[in-house]
Amino acid sequence: MAVRKADATWNGTLKGGDGTMKLGSGAFEGAFSFSTRFEEAPGTNPEELIGAAYAGCFSMALSAGLEKNGTPSTSVTTSGNVHLTPAEGGGMEISKVVLNVNATVVDIDEAKFNEIVESTREGCPIGKLLKGGTATLVIEATLQS
Amino acid sequence: MAVRKADATWNGTLKGGDGTMKLGSGAFEGAFSFSTRFEEAPGTNPEELIGAAYAGCFSMALSAGLEKNGTPSTSVTTSGNVHLTPAEGGGMEISKVVLNVNATVVDIDEAKFNEIVESTREGCPIGKLLKGGTATLVIEATLQS
Repeated sequence: MAVRKADATWNGTLKGGDGTMKLGSGAFEGAFSFSTRFEEAPGTNPEELIGAAYAGCFSMALSAGLEKNGTPSTSVTTSGNVHLTPAEGGGMEISKVVLNVNATVVDIDEAKFNEIVESTREGCPIGKLLKGGTATLVIEATLQS
Repeated sequence: MAVRKADATWNGTLKGGDGTMKLGSGAFEGAFSFSTRFEEAPGTNPEELIGAAYAGCFSMALSAGLEKNGTPSTSVTTSGNVHLTPAEGGGMEISKVVLNVNATVVDIDEAKFNEIVESTREGCPIGKLLKGGTATLVIEATLQS
């Protein structure tokens, strides 16, 4: 249905080099480096792009599920945390991705809300993409009325 | 080692609502909608963030592998294509992610280059995160000297 594009470059060595990541839409191009990725220098890194993609997809998908249930949300707000840790056998891996979700919904009970959260976990395209890889995927959803 | 953050919001219904995705570093915040995600309206979407993250990670990791081999690259440039398609049983899924990689390296033969591409495929943190999900991951790497 849709093919989405992006570009990236890395120039030079791991620690001395630098790179850029660019979205196909043109909405963003950002520089990254060893320090912005593995240390605490200000700047972007691939992991926060993953977090934003999953948080965005989940928020949209949960809203769609709530709407389908006849109980549309006013808003769904999601914070993503992406854990980059040393891997067994060397290298790094993303071991955990946690989404903290707050949904404002009128006229829905907690049980039904949790059921829709669960089906969103299974149906969200980014969630299905990440499932089965190195990361444990955790969804913590709170209903606010 | 590092926890990277991101935030997203969706306000309202699937087709009438709108959302934002924001990187924890502050490097980017972008609006998205049903039309920017599933149609061709200008703007961002979760899929291009995935493409940028994978292309960025792979470019950096391949550079590191080439350096470790004693044949550092001048540059590694990667284009990512993320295919969002209807899923069997309804909904959408990311069925394929293709990286087209161009590496400029002096003094390496094709066989060794391909071996390092292969080990990068296995070791790149974002690649390991995506492996095992809905998407076939394809790497097409070209050596330029």
